[in-house]
Amino acid sequence: LIVVLAGGVGAAKFLHGLAAAVPPDEITAIVNTGDDVEFYGLDISPDIDTVLYTLSGRVNPETGWGLAGDTVACLGALNELGEDTWFRLGDRDIATHLVRSSLLRSGLSPTAVTAELASRLGVRSWILPMTDSHFRTFVQTDAGRLPFQEYFVKRGQTDVVKAIEFEGCETAEPTPGVIEALRSAAGLIFAPSNPFVSIGTILAVKGVRQLIESRSYPSVAISPIIGGKALKGPADKMMSSLGHDISAVGVARLYQGLVDVFVIDNEDAGLKPEVEALGFRVIVTNTIMRGLPERERLARDVMQAIR
Amino acid sequence: LIVVLAGGVGAAKFLHGLAAAVPPDEITAIVNTGDDVEFYGLDISPDIDTVLYTLSGRVNPETGWGLAGDTVACLGALNELGEDTWFRLGDRDIATHLVRSSLLRSGLSPTAVTAELASRLGVRSWILPMTDSHFRTFVQTDAGRLPFQEYFVKRGQTDVVKAIEFEGCETAEPTPGVIEALRSAAGLIFAPSNPFVSIGTILAVKGVRQLIESRSYPSVAISPIIGGKALKGPADKMMSSLGHDISAVGVARLYQGLVDVFVIDNEDAGLKPEVEALGFRVIVTNTIMRGLPERERLARDVMQAIR
Repeated sequence: LIVVLAGGVGAAKFLHGLAAAVPPDEITAIVNTGDDVEFYGLDISPDIDTVLYTLSGRVNPETGWGLAGDTVACLGALNELGEDTWFRLGDRDIATHLVRSSLLRSGLSPTAVTAELASRLGVRSWILPMTDSHFRTFVQTDAGRLPFQEYFVKRGQTDVVKAIEFEGCETAEPTPGVIEALRSAAGLIFAPSNPFVSIGTILAVKGVRQLIESRSYPSVAISPIIGGKALKGPADKMMSSLGHDISAVGVARLYQGLVDVFVIDNEDAGLKPEVEALGFRVIVTNTIMRGLPERERLARDVMQAIR
Repeated sequence: LIVVLAGGVGAAKFLHGLAAAVPPDEITAIVNTGDDVEFYGLDISPDIDTVLYTLSGRVNPETGWGLAGDTVACLGALNELGEDTWFRLGDRDIATHLVRSSLLRSGLSPTAVTAELASRLGVRSWILPMTDSHFRTFVQTDAGRLPFQEYFVKRGQTDVVKAIEFEGCETAEPTPGVIEALRSAAGLIFAPSNPFVSIGTILAVKGVRQLIESRSYPSVAISPIIGGKALKGPADKMMSSLGHDISAVGVARLYQGLVDVFVIDNEDAGLKPEVEALGFRVIVTNTIMRGLPERERLARDVMQAIR
């Protein structure tokens, strides 16, 4: 069993390649739910959905999230009804949220609902929410404390992030599935996701960091920073405002003790000695994942490091 | 204040004309909620929505229900997710149900939620659910006992209705608004709706029939049966299988004691003496309401009878 710590788009692309490189049902993704949000009574789990949509071949290839060919008629009508509509929900996407919300309300856990959605979408890998408990990411900014999606979507990541807070992290428990996966894994992969608000949330769930620190299997991380920039999202700006180097080296420092092998992009080949000096084995390869062939090749490089 | 007992499409068309004939805020519609149904956690109130959509000029003119130009992308995705999708919900229509469901879940009553939706849609008449309590119509058929929408939509009204049952009618209370409207009305109108599953439900709410029987204002009914046929829906088949004449006379008999003036279509002019013999004053006019001019003219005829 290969376990992947996953955020949204970058992680989904990597998982897509991994599911081509190894049997899909030998993959378990532990997915960030700190970004989860509720609108109009719909329970929305953006990173889970991005992973499900990507692995089922339904994702919008232009954005990396949402469904291909989706429309926004419902959102337009919600806007006319005076509702806030800055969180973009497609009509077909809303079907997923309706099913999730209604299954949750019937008493199923987020883990059970995600398994049900994965099964209905034909996803054969194991997609696990990092916790079934309430857990919400907030950012402290110049403009005050903001729920993650307000910072990320509504305000377009324009605020300077001074601190990140996890509401619920004192009480949020990892699920039995998450604990079992981290205990029995043959290898662990940190997807190229935001180290603070995607991987950091998973590590903040009680006991998860300790389980990884005491692992007996190899652990590999792929840098989400290439040439001093995040391919997607605010990871680079957060690295800077939170006092870290905006580089693969900065990320590697965050993962010390949790990761054995660090994968950096060809563009960052010059950083290899610096990362090695931190105690990592370093793989230099192409980490940009446009289509499935690139994704699969990166996954094979990572699997080689694990084996 | 003019009070209208209302079902779905026929009532909505009449209310549309009435709102052109008298100031809209002098109209109170008491609307059937026995057809209400829940899908995917959405609280759907078909007759309320048909009235709101018609009065706000948003209704689909071809069907008489749903929203003009609506699409069904969400329903298609729900179908792909393995959900039952025989109840047709448009994408823009779902926005209404999302807002309703989320306001109800926040603790507002159906009456308060309907007032809020009416306000957001710019509807100036008072649209009141007949009750805020649980009340559901079932039909006993050859195929067994069916929830109303299963009979009406899923099975296309093909079953022979042997009896109609109202779940909750022993306990469902009229709202203060309904009681006040029926006490202080200047006139009461029975819209041309199904006498069993639209008007019959309203009359089955505790005390409503008694309030109407003891009225001190004129009461007018418009026959939903023209030339032995219902313009829309299964009223004619129900009249027959429940042992009534399929005619304006049959409907008039159902409304004895509740109605003073009975409006029949020109086509049924020959029935005038028979209806008069039942003790009604009879108006013969065109009751088919294609466009707004026809609707408004019918409303003016009815208002003249009330004055």
